[in-house]
Amino acid sequence: MKDKLTDITEMSIWEDAQRMLEKARKDGVETAWDRLAQQTPHCRFCELGTTCRNCVMGPCRISAKAEPGGKLSRGVCGADADVIVARNFGRFIAGGSAGHSDHGRDVIETLEAVVEGHAANYQIRDAAKLTRIAAELGIAVEGRAIIDVAADVVDACYSDFGSRRKAVNFVSRVPAKRKEVWDKLGITPRGVDREIAEMMHRTHMGCDNDAPNTMLHAARCALSDGWAGSMIATELCDILFGTPTPRKSTVNLGVIKKETVNILVHGHNPVVSEMILMAAREPEMIALAKKAGAEGITVAGLCCTGNELLMRQGIPMAGNHLMTELAIVTGAVEAVVVDYQCIMPSLVQISACYHTRFIDTAAKARFTGAIHMNFTPENAREEAHKILHMAIEAFAERDPGRVDIPVEPVDIMTGFSNEAILEALGGSLEPLLDAVKAGTVRGFAAVVGCNNPKIKQDSANVGIIKELIKNDIMVLVTGCVTTAAGKAGLLMPEGAEMAGPGLRNLCGALGIPPVLHMGSCVDNARILQLCALIANSLGVDISDLPVVASAPEWYSEKAAAIGLYAVASGVYTHLGLPPNILGSQVVTDIALNGLEDLVGASFVVEPDPVKAAELLNQRVTSKRKALGLNA
Amino acid sequence: MKDKLTDITEMSIWEDAQRMLEKARKDGVETAWDRLAQQTPHCRFCELGTTCRNCVMGPCRISAKAEPGGKLSRGVCGADADVIVARNFGRFIAGGSAGHSDHGRDVIETLEAVVEGHAANYQIRDAAKLTRIAAELGIAVEGRAIIDVAADVVDACYSDFGSRRKAVNFVSRVPAKRKEVWDKLGITPRGVDREIAEMMHRTHMGCDNDAPNTMLHAARCALSDGWAGSMIATELCDILFGTPTPRKSTVNLGVIKKETVNILVHGHNPVVSEMILMAAREPEMIALAKKAGAEGITVAGLCCTGNELLMRQGIPMAGNHLMTELAIVTGAVEAVVVDYQCIMPSLVQISACYHTRFIDTAAKARFTGAIHMNFTPENAREEAHKILHMAIEAFAERDPGRVDIPVEPVDIMTGFSNEAILEALGGSLEPLLDAVKAGTVRGFAAVVGCNNPKIKQDSANVGIIKELIKNDIMVLVTGCVTTAAGKAGLLMPEGAEMAGPGLRNLCGALGIPPVLHMGSCVDNARILQLCALIANSLGVDISDLPVVASAPEWYSEKAAAIGLYAVASGVYTHLGLPPNILGSQVVTDIALNGLEDLVGASFVVEPDPVKAAELLNQRVTSKRKALGLNA
Repeated sequence: MKDKLTDITEMSIWEDAQRMLEKARKDGVETAWDRLAQQTPHCRFCELGTTCRNCVMGPCRISAKAEPGGKLSRGVCGADADVIVARNFGRFIAGGSAGHSDHGRDVIETLEAVVEGHAANYQIRDAAKLTRIAAELGIAVEGRAIIDVAADVVDACYSDFGSRRKAVNFVSRVPAKRKEVWDKLGITPRGVDREIAEMMHRTHMGCDNDAPNTMLHAARCALSDGWAGSMIATELCDILFGTPTPRKSTVNLGVIKKETVNILVHGHNPVVSEMILMAAREPEMIALAKKAGAEGITVAGLCCTGNELLMRQGIPMAGNHLMTELAIVTGAVEAVVVDYQCIMPSLVQISACYHTRFIDTAAKARFTGAIHMNFTPENAREEAHKILHMAIEAFAERDPGRVDIPVEPVDIMTGFSNEAILEALGGSLEPLLDAVKAGTVRGFAAVVGCNNPKIKQDSANVGIIKELIKNDIMVLVTGCVTTAAGKAGLLMPEGAEMAGPGLRNLCGALGIPPVLHMGSCVDNARILQLCALIANSLGVDISDLPVVASAPEWYSEKAAAIGLYAVASGVYTHLGLPPNILGSQVVTDIALNGLEDLVGASFVVEPDPVKAAELLNQRVTSKRKALGLNA
Repeated sequence: MKDKLTDITEMSIWEDAQRMLEKARKDGVETAWDRLAQQTPHCRFCELGTTCRNCVMGPCRISAKAEPGGKLSRGVCGADADVIVARNFGRFIAGGSAGHSDHGRDVIETLEAVVEGHAANYQIRDAAKLTRIAAELGIAVEGRAIIDVAADVVDACYSDFGSRRKAVNFVSRVPAKRKEVWDKLGITPRGVDREIAEMMHRTHMGCDNDAPNTMLHAARCALSDGWAGSMIATELCDILFGTPTPRKSTVNLGVIKKETVNILVHGHNPVVSEMILMAAREPEMIALAKKAGAEGITVAGLCCTGNELLMRQGIPMAGNHLMTELAIVTGAVEAVVVDYQCIMPSLVQISACYHTRFIDTAAKARFTGAIHMNFTPENAREEAHKILHMAIEAFAERDPGRVDIPVEPVDIMTGFSNEAILEALGGSLEPLLDAVKAGTVRGFAAVVGCNNPKIKQDSANVGIIKELIKNDIMVLVTGCVTTAAGKAGLLMPEGAEMAGPGLRNLCGALGIPPVLHMGSCVDNARILQLCALIANSLGVDISDLPVVASAPEWYSEKAAAIGLYAVASGVYTHLGLPPNILGSQVVTDIALNGLEDLVGASFVVEPDPVKAAELLNQRVTSKRKALGLNA
């Protein structure tokens, strides 16, 4: 029998991954899969969520076998499994919400620096969007200088990070019925930092000791991410770097070129990677690279900062989460430039096995052993130039004998912002809604999230998408699922051949793929907005729509926060593996059932992609029926 | 040999505790000590801080025996023990900072409600302090209505919870040399919620992977608690409820009276407990209690909300952290009214063993099985009345055969706010500084914190204080150490007989105790301010002062945050037991040594109170010498 943890053919569905896993073994490089094998089996208590380290009367752990009131049924303070699991889950969500939201804050700061005139290398690239967002925020726009409007947008966005709002700004986008649900439950998000801090407060010893109450605040915290932190990141990045429009690109490790200086950008914040790209496109830099013997400079993306540049600039994507280590193993990467989040610390060690420069750029995300460049909006261009020089210098140290680029790139189409979708539809959602009403498109599924070495890489991401489009469910992807869908040919109009007849015809007519790339993980906010737009058009709640979500191979706290804001916004959400909550019947039951009664949607956990897709399909069917549409 | 975990005489130094522990066993009541025995030995990985649950590629754990780079030396993502321990410690600090700071926010909201005129039961009781604080915050006060000044103070305080300040307001109190230290390290606190959210962001997978960098942000996060969240809570509570002045009270379980309706207030936020007390003092309520057969109503304090009322209203204190369960075991408590933090969830079960009503009051701190009263600034008085009715009703259900009040109360003196201290000194610190210069008072020690069942209750709290005052070190107490000191007779002027000759004489001259009660845990901000006042008077940094701190029996995340802001403010700080960091040599070394180089102070961990006091005494000696004073 093949061992899931050690057999390379069980680790990933992709040739590029498998070839690099083999090379990694040959080169003596340890990967996430190797470490997972070491860490398996995991601690059962931590896996069930029943360990508590929130004070030093402990650490405590609740036995799964403990009788209620019996030995080991409570921690030293008296917290039982329900309270402990809920607290841990709440902090998990706070971690995820904080990631997106602190990222959002950094983008506000960048726009603020532009407004204040000390960030010469950034500018307002989409003034029309700025004006539109300003108007949405209730800011006067008529006859005003764009910079003054921008200043007011900065103020409004900052207010979402304070304590004085009763609801974050973009709650104005939320359908009225959904707002009522939130208000009744007391989970309308007020401020992103506030909900995070309150989550941390509630989970301190002796505060919130009622699991359902803690879970509700976790939902509020996640909603502040979805409808504020992430949404602000998305909208302001469009303003600063341009709103994405459809364009073509390529994907997989083949985008790394033997002949060029290769720079991988990794992390989440385009404030850094946009500058790297800008520098790499300068003729002087290209000349320098040529002088060093290269044919040019390739900037390729990893993870979400890759998605940001892919959406807006069409850069090639080297890979998703589990490809980040393997990309370096090609031996052809001169520099990995990272900002923050989802950057495996192992990349430092792997870079050191080759000639690769590992460069971190954020004061808040240092890596022991990395080259540190302290990026700010003010010095970004200079720092980017320094990094380009380092990468070009490294090219000379590349060992051609250790280079192996395993595959040829696959074509993809990207750039489907809501603005681009609307434009493709002629300025109105009506054609799409008509297709939904007719059953040509039976519904929509957002398939998002990560990789997780517990799951054969991209098997579930691709497997679920294929099943969904077969059932005429249009798929929207973001984050690491993008690369998976792209490598599988699903991000090209030709991918529609794999779809059911309705979706196939529609894609053919519009010249679009059956799977639309909508951006990075913060850009799930685009999908939220799209749901709200559709629900408002139909005069229903988001939970009434034939819309579902799935994170088949998620791994991160941010993915959990995204899942929870999706559910709390009314979207039935599939997870390929559960969070660490199974040690509490109460918490598990709320996640899988109770939330349905409270917010009109719940989580479902199913590892098998075909079964999962069937559950999502059934949900679409039931929602279609409830709306009086054909199944 | 006596078993520390099961022998009652090893559990607490106090007669009231020991008697109630016996009764608990007889009554079939489980206590924190019983649960600690069950939880011992603790999970070694969690105890060392080397477990990580921050994503679902794990949970992971790092073996203490792992060779660097060897098996189990890294989690799935590649994080090593240093990164994992630092991340866990960072989140621990974020939890503590969030508790105090979210409490501070609640107090701002209450003052805001007063300003806006919809909190009729609250008022500005100390207008002089409001004016003083406003002036400090740069707010115009001359000739303005107090309510307008208050509105501006509310604005200024809220701004410390936002993202736009470069430094929180009260950094203006910090000595210049200290500010330079913080600026150089990049740890000047900007906003309380912001530092908390950033801490959560940094500790997400793939962000801050450099333990020293994470530790520095933990310090910044803690500083935002000390110099903003907690300080705002203290200052605004003084404005709303009056600045404490010296007064007498009593302490121990003997304050619970057989003849009265007994209500225990527990938690931290006087916004609730002040209203309970106000209602209990109303003649109609007292008449109602008498009608029910009681002689009156006793409102006694537990933990910090107790300390708040003790400082300002002189209510009796029933006990500290480990007395909270035992107070109910007296069988004479009609109601336990809680707000939030440090409230053992076991109190719900213990209350159910008697006739005791367990009532929670905060939407953010519900207890499964409790009676919930949703307190707001608007409805506080009505809710308080309802609670009084419940308690009086419960009196009839009390079973006299199950009542045992074990001891007679001990007298204490309280109310030593900085304002009170200054007034006692004739309006200037000079007499005190002269005493320090002369060596009459060799220095100051803040002995603060909790109880922890791992330590014989109050043995270390009292043990350290006695050693310190013997060495002419004046002791300042807050939080749960207050009750310990009080029960030991140290909070009375007569306690000076236990002090060294210098301190004894000074106390005799001023009629004060050798140990000054300065309030609740958030009131450690008073001590920070006092340190700053002294340092500024002398033109030196806080780290130059003969000032030390100790948390001999700490248990909570808040205590860790307090310890860290003390250290980062320049105060050498003793802990009776370590946080869960020992699994990282790097983190442990920073805590115990590295911080000394960075911020001029560090932690020291020593379980033995006599040895700990000697270390603190040596520090005072060395600081005195460095200032050119006699040792």
